[in-house]
Amino acid sequence: MIYMDCAATTPTDPLVLEEMLPYFSEKFGNASSATRLGSAGKQAIRTARERAAALIGALPEEIFFTSGGTESDNWALRLGVRAGKSGRHIIVSAVEHPAVLRTAEDLAREGYRLTVLPVDAEGTVLPETLRSAMCEDTVLVSVMTANNEVGTIEPIRELAQIAHEGGALFHTDAVQAFGQIPLIASELGADLLSASAHKIFGPKGTGLLYVKKGVRLDAFLTGGGQERGRRSGTENVPGIVGFGKACALAAQRMEEAIRVKRSLRELFWEHLLTENPHVLVSGSRENRLPGNVHICLPGIEGETLLILLDQKGICASSGSACSAGALEPSHVLTAMGRKAIEAKGSLRLTFSEHNTAEEVLEVCELIRVQTARLRELSLPYEEYCKHV
Amino acid sequence: MIYMDCAATTPTDPLVLEEMLPYFSEKFGNASSATRLGSAGKQAIRTARERAAALIGALPEEIFFTSGGTESDNWALRLGVRAGKSGRHIIVSAVEHPAVLRTAEDLAREGYRLTVLPVDAEGTVLPETLRSAMCEDTVLVSVMTANNEVGTIEPIRELAQIAHEGGALFHTDAVQAFGQIPLIASELGADLLSASAHKIFGPKGTGLLYVKKGVRLDAFLTGGGQERGRRSGTENVPGIVGFGKACALAAQRMEEAIRVKRSLRELFWEHLLTENPHVLVSGSRENRLPGNVHICLPGIEGETLLILLDQKGICASSGSACSAGALEPSHVLTAMGRKAIEAKGSLRLTFSEHNTAEEVLEVCELIRVQTARLRELSLPYEEYCKHV
Repeated sequence: MIYMDCAATTPTDPLVLEEMLPYFSEKFGNASSATRLGSAGKQAIRTARERAAALIGALPEEIFFTSGGTESDNWALRLGVRAGKSGRHIIVSAVEHPAVLRTAEDLAREGYRLTVLPVDAEGTVLPETLRSAMCEDTVLVSVMTANNEVGTIEPIRELAQIAHEGGALFHTDAVQAFGQIPLIASELGADLLSASAHKIFGPKGTGLLYVKKGVRLDAFLTGGGQERGRRSGTENVPGIVGFGKACALAAQRMEEAIRVKRSLRELFWEHLLTENPHVLVSGSRENRLPGNVHICLPGIEGETLLILLDQKGICASSGSACSAGALEPSHVLTAMGRKAIEAKGSLRLTFSEHNTAEEVLEVCELIRVQTARLRELSLPYEEYCKHV
Repeated sequence: MIYMDCAATTPTDPLVLEEMLPYFSEKFGNASSATRLGSAGKQAIRTARERAAALIGALPEEIFFTSGGTESDNWALRLGVRAGKSGRHIIVSAVEHPAVLRTAEDLAREGYRLTVLPVDAEGTVLPETLRSAMCEDTVLVSVMTANNEVGTIEPIRELAQIAHEGGALFHTDAVQAFGQIPLIASELGADLLSASAHKIFGPKGTGLLYVKKGVRLDAFLTGGGQERGRRSGTENVPGIVGFGKACALAAQRMEEAIRVKRSLRELFWEHLLTENPHVLVSGSRENRLPGNVHICLPGIEGETLLILLDQKGICASSGSACSAGALEPSHVLTAMGRKAIEAKGSLRLTFSEHNTAEEVLEVCELIRVQTARLRELSLPYEEYCKHV
């Protein structure tokens, strides 16, 4: 199998799993129990929190563990609107993950005014767009650190500053960027930042929300008062331990991983663009996640190409796993101005430092062959060629 | 170590862990991905859902996986109030877990009228109490299936019927009862039912909400639309697989487990009550969870006794793990009419079928010795003896 769908999920690293294992059946105590067995869990969570904080230059007390990126996003938005000044206006970008977009739409149904910021052709939220959308009663701005489909990295620092100048809180969904590119929370300037373990070789079912010191964010899950009263629920000790280890590994490996992924990415572009006619690169060539390749192949159905690749043992995606099987073209590509025929032929390859140049070449060759085959039968492709 | 704190958490059963393991690093696909790797996860979740449903005689499509009991309770309450007729009155019992109580209080702050039902001396919610609390605009009633501290089993069937007669939805936090005693969802009559994996030898970080077919409960976590749009977030495949296996094991073992735990419980009572003066049994002797023993030993500090037991390798609890370290007496015991001096001396032993009669006798002996020692130095105990 050639796995190139790391933006959807990653396997749990064997070193991560190794650290998790004792917390299932041996050191299994409830971390809130006042027993030595409970203390072992509590201590393990402390270490994990320090590791997660260290990865983004945060304080351990700014890290709150959750069940994943979606919970973190829901928490940040649903309670973030009440955490700062009072007002009824929120702003998100058009290319957000559904965990932010759908939640913002929910808030809109509850009476908040919602502005959805447009992006440019590369998927970038231009700071001036945010500036002109800010209102007196804007309470929260949410723009992702890097896009999950096309990999575009957003100008978070500038955006956060504009939000703050307007007195709003700033949240960033960093699920795709956390552990992948250097992020220093204090430099980014975000008040709230979401991350997930399973995108960085940690376990599924664990995430975190960074809450900047001083931001008074109420609890989303109320109950037993775990996570210092901010996130109730018996702590998922093995999951949190695994997330901590994944953070430690990401910190160690990041520099080399970026180098490897960038070189694989460049190799991909080189072959894809020379070997296939009418390939559209999505997003910026430069300002993107190191492991992300996203192209549109007008005239084919991305989903069909995926199935063909899957049959050859290659895991990729047509966009986001969360909307796999959806019939409409991606909202991200649409926001970037792609036509339907282009957006439908989208293919996302997201790799890790464990992929190799040989794999890249093999996949490129398969894409070339299958694309040519699919386009041969494609009336829309014929039409498309006439008009470009 | 002698582990008698199963109401706080249980070790993950080796058979459960064995089933989970392949889903970390091998069959690690995103269950929402349209690849074969993703399908493996999807299929595994389907099996888990069938197993969980089977344990409570529900339909698979009535089961929604969450990150745990607390999330399930939050979901049931926060969205349950909007799932039925319109109205602003909610009812919960005074002995609910904080995941229900705190959440109900949050709803009260948001404008709902909250009635907290009293209980009798055994911790039972009497049906007539609910009947007289029902109002025209009561939208939701939440009473737990069995109490996490004193083990009292509530008359859910009658309570659900009364709620329904008043046109309200009925939720039950079954975290302590699920997999421990026979529960048939349709017979109980609950519209919503919360459960957790880690109380039944499953992994932490996984729970479920049963939503009766036809109940239109909106999503609590919005985003990618997983769990048929009701609970977004990348599926925690290993956790869900483990929960499913734990459900299957619980179904297999329940009858024998109940027999073993009941006999251990009776052995406990016999020794505790004869060997210690002034022991108060909490809750009903009969109508309680098979593995729960809860006593009050007036004149001692439960927390001190716990530490002494812990030093001898015995894990127990003074009440709930979630409020461990809390200085106020338990809200459950207070609601049952216990005086502060009684409630402070509380001890909860919750065992599984893996405990033995030898362990019970050893723990009883330790309790006897330590209680006598602590009471010797206790002025409050002297006072107490004068007044009883």
